[in-house]
Amino acid sequence: MPEQNYPIYAAIDLGSNSFHMLIVRSVEGSVQTIGKIKRKVRLASGLQQNGELDQAAMLRGWDCLSLFAERLQDIPPQNVRIVGTAALRLAQNRQTFLDTAESILGHRIDIISGEEEAKLIYVGVAHTSGTSKTKLVIDIGGASTEIVAGERFEPKVVNSLNMGCVTFRNQFFVDGAITLRGFELASAAAQSELNGKIQPYMAFGWQACLGASGTPQAIQEILIGQGQNEMITLDKLLSLRQACIDCGHIDKLILPGLLEERRLVFVSGLAILIALFKAFHIDYMVVAGGALREGIVYGMIPCLQNQDIRQRTLTSFVQRYHLDQEQALRVKAMALNLYEQLYAPWSLEQHESRAILEAAAVLHEVGLTVDFKFASKHGAYILSNTAIPGFSLAQRKLLISMVRNYREDIAINRINQQTMTSPVLAGQLTRILRLAVILTMRRKDEVLPKVKVKTNHINELDLHFEENWLANHPLMESELKQEQTYQQMVNWQLTYR
Amino acid sequence: MPEQNYPIYAAIDLGSNSFHMLIVRSVEGSVQTIGKIKRKVRLASGLQQNGELDQAAMLRGWDCLSLFAERLQDIPPQNVRIVGTAALRLAQNRQTFLDTAESILGHRIDIISGEEEAKLIYVGVAHTSGTSKTKLVIDIGGASTEIVAGERFEPKVVNSLNMGCVTFRNQFFVDGAITLRGFELASAAAQSELNGKIQPYMAFGWQACLGASGTPQAIQEILIGQGQNEMITLDKLLSLRQACIDCGHIDKLILPGLLEERRLVFVSGLAILIALFKAFHIDYMVVAGGALREGIVYGMIPCLQNQDIRQRTLTSFVQRYHLDQEQALRVKAMALNLYEQLYAPWSLEQHESRAILEAAAVLHEVGLTVDFKFASKHGAYILSNTAIPGFSLAQRKLLISMVRNYREDIAINRINQQTMTSPVLAGQLTRILRLAVILTMRRKDEVLPKVKVKTNHINELDLHFEENWLANHPLMESELKQEQTYQQMVNWQLTYR
Repeated sequence: MPEQNYPIYAAIDLGSNSFHMLIVRSVEGSVQTIGKIKRKVRLASGLQQNGELDQAAMLRGWDCLSLFAERLQDIPPQNVRIVGTAALRLAQNRQTFLDTAESILGHRIDIISGEEEAKLIYVGVAHTSGTSKTKLVIDIGGASTEIVAGERFEPKVVNSLNMGCVTFRNQFFVDGAITLRGFELASAAAQSELNGKIQPYMAFGWQACLGASGTPQAIQEILIGQGQNEMITLDKLLSLRQACIDCGHIDKLILPGLLEERRLVFVSGLAILIALFKAFHIDYMVVAGGALREGIVYGMIPCLQNQDIRQRTLTSFVQRYHLDQEQALRVKAMALNLYEQLYAPWSLEQHESRAILEAAAVLHEVGLTVDFKFASKHGAYILSNTAIPGFSLAQRKLLISMVRNYREDIAINRINQQTMTSPVLAGQLTRILRLAVILTMRRKDEVLPKVKVKTNHINELDLHFEENWLANHPLMESELKQEQTYQQMVNWQLTYR
Repeated sequence: MPEQNYPIYAAIDLGSNSFHMLIVRSVEGSVQTIGKIKRKVRLASGLQQNGELDQAAMLRGWDCLSLFAERLQDIPPQNVRIVGTAALRLAQNRQTFLDTAESILGHRIDIISGEEEAKLIYVGVAHTSGTSKTKLVIDIGGASTEIVAGERFEPKVVNSLNMGCVTFRNQFFVDGAITLRGFELASAAAQSELNGKIQPYMAFGWQACLGASGTPQAIQEILIGQGQNEMITLDKLLSLRQACIDCGHIDKLILPGLLEERRLVFVSGLAILIALFKAFHIDYMVVAGGALREGIVYGMIPCLQNQDIRQRTLTSFVQRYHLDQEQALRVKAMALNLYEQLYAPWSLEQHESRAILEAAAVLHEVGLTVDFKFASKHGAYILSNTAIPGFSLAQRKLLISMVRNYREDIAINRINQQTMTSPVLAGQLTRILRLAVILTMRRKDEVLPKVKVKTNHINELDLHFEENWLANHPLMESELKQEQTYQQMVNWQLTYR
């Protein structure tokens, strides 16, 4: 077999609640996870009144690190980074813990400041999530909350605040009762932490707000469990707050989609998030694809720095799945040609529809790697189960519904189920992709038809070829006839001449 | 994006019933289908008493070829091969058809003899199916039946007989009635065609019997529809014959798994196959993964000639899915080490179990290309939906059940559902793979443990490490403890020290 050499990297994060180890390979411009180890060390619960970590907590930490150490030996030292966060920042006797920990690991541990942590979180989010130029990133941890506004990969306004879902539970929900008053006290405390810190963010502004870590993730899962779309809004948070109050007690907190391991700290995280939504006037938040550990990893891989993430993602898919790249670019060019023609009559300007169409055009053949038969289904499977950095969950769903329908029978339910945009617009983008695939089917630039597209209605599409072109291209005509039948089955009207 | 250059090939087969065009890319040692066009031209039905094709049939053929021609222009001429079979062999006026056909296509058409056809079918089967050294390959077409025995890629004993499922339907089931007498007459006619031709095959012998094309495929689908395993035996064929007779008439022939498009010619094909099973004393037949068109394609791709197919398949997967090949070989070596130790006590010699274990070890991480989370599920999805040349359907199922269970929770139903071997042996092979994955988890040769495996029972496994080794490797011990829990959940006993 020929030689392959994909370097391995490891990131370890000694958090206040859990220690995590993430091991990845850098494969063709993408980061492929090959190992994850997590242990609930609960370091913070060993912090005593005098500010020192007790011996039991340190032993739990060292035990865990001796597991990590075994695996760490096999990774080039320059490809390993280990950071400690809030609990170790706070512990007066952290040097005692660190001396033994570093000798177990054979590596240096960086105790990073809240500000450094916030910057790494931002980088992790920027590399794994939507590509809006400016972002507000919020990460509610156990003992601290990081808030960062930035542009592309650069964090610009950074704060780490002393509030978290564990500490706030102990302060405001310690007896387990869930009351409006508890929520209001917690929100007021959060508000006072934020005092004087809001203005620089508002001055900077942002195009997208992203939530990292457990609290937004749990909220998203509950929204999906309730059959709602995954965008987090203040209205939804307030409804959730009422649902929690209706449960009455943390012991009785049962919501569809809420995991048992999140139950204890859910209401305190929710209270903080509500305060943040109000303070920053956040319209909606989407969940980020990565945070601290991803920031550490991406910071170590040199070739991944400072590229356009969507472009990097698409290039990586072309390489990883051996896509026919010339064809991908040909379909993209044809799709954009049709898109421009239909832009005004179909009002296509919404929701980054152009970028999603481009991505779908590049990725549509990904399922061929599995089999020609059901290729669109295989492609949807792969895209539904793999990371697609640069695209939000809703954008992914639209993208997947288009790939699922790039040829043959149209699964209209997939188009209706995506939550990125209206079924009408999603259907229109799907039709553009399908036609681009048919019109480029010969996989040659020299034989592309010149087509004018007309429409008088959102549902209607009329293709005009040059004179005699169709008569001279019976295979294309036969494909268009077949396509007309597929579209008729979902009541889309297609004509051509 | 970097340049990629995977050459494209096309095979066209002008069959008696349908014309087919197959377009493939040669990707990293595998053949990836990127286009298929099929039209039911029914050339043979235009053969008149005087042995000439009528004008209508020729027009249908030319119409179809003008579709193919459009696509064919884009493929390098040296990568295209077009063959005509039985109907064109028989047509007295074939030159009239061919002159126009070749000018439409811009390519030469080879009217191949029955013997050439049989040889190409053999090559197509050899490249896509199980790797038994010697094979008997049977292809029941519309107007001819090809029978070939061969070794590796070399056809050795070759015949093409004038009997097929279309011609026999016209002769023995023309009024549509399905009777035992009809079957017996058809079988007797087949028997007389075979007269004097059996002996060279019996002298040559074969390790595997493979059936290509529609009739065996349809029988397999019915067997699966009935909940039986997919091996075709004479007993099952006779039961099927009875089920057909019970239906009474081809118009009323409804069997679970039988497609409408096969219904008209199913009983005649079945009658021929029963005669062949009896004449050649065939124990069981499995369905081949390819035939004539694949033989044409593989014959054109130079680098795919005469390799070991299984090895080629595994190498191609490593490249196509960017597998960590050093790790694949490490897991394979460890798995074979355990296999050798357990060979006698667990009676592991059956059913090529060693080859399947090797393949599972090389392929187990294929799902990582999709995501680390649920990687075993993703791997099983890919392998269940992609071609795995060199492995029969039953072998694939065993392989897939092992990949599905290479780590974490054990889906015992997958192990019980595979039909390659007993659930006990499948479970044992799965346990060997799982342990090999754990023991090599550090992905380094220098740190592999030396392990002795003992067993006193089919269900029992006891690992002995060198003294103090486990005490010095707490991560490995923690993994083995977790593995013990997973195995306990399916009542497998694992101990270690």
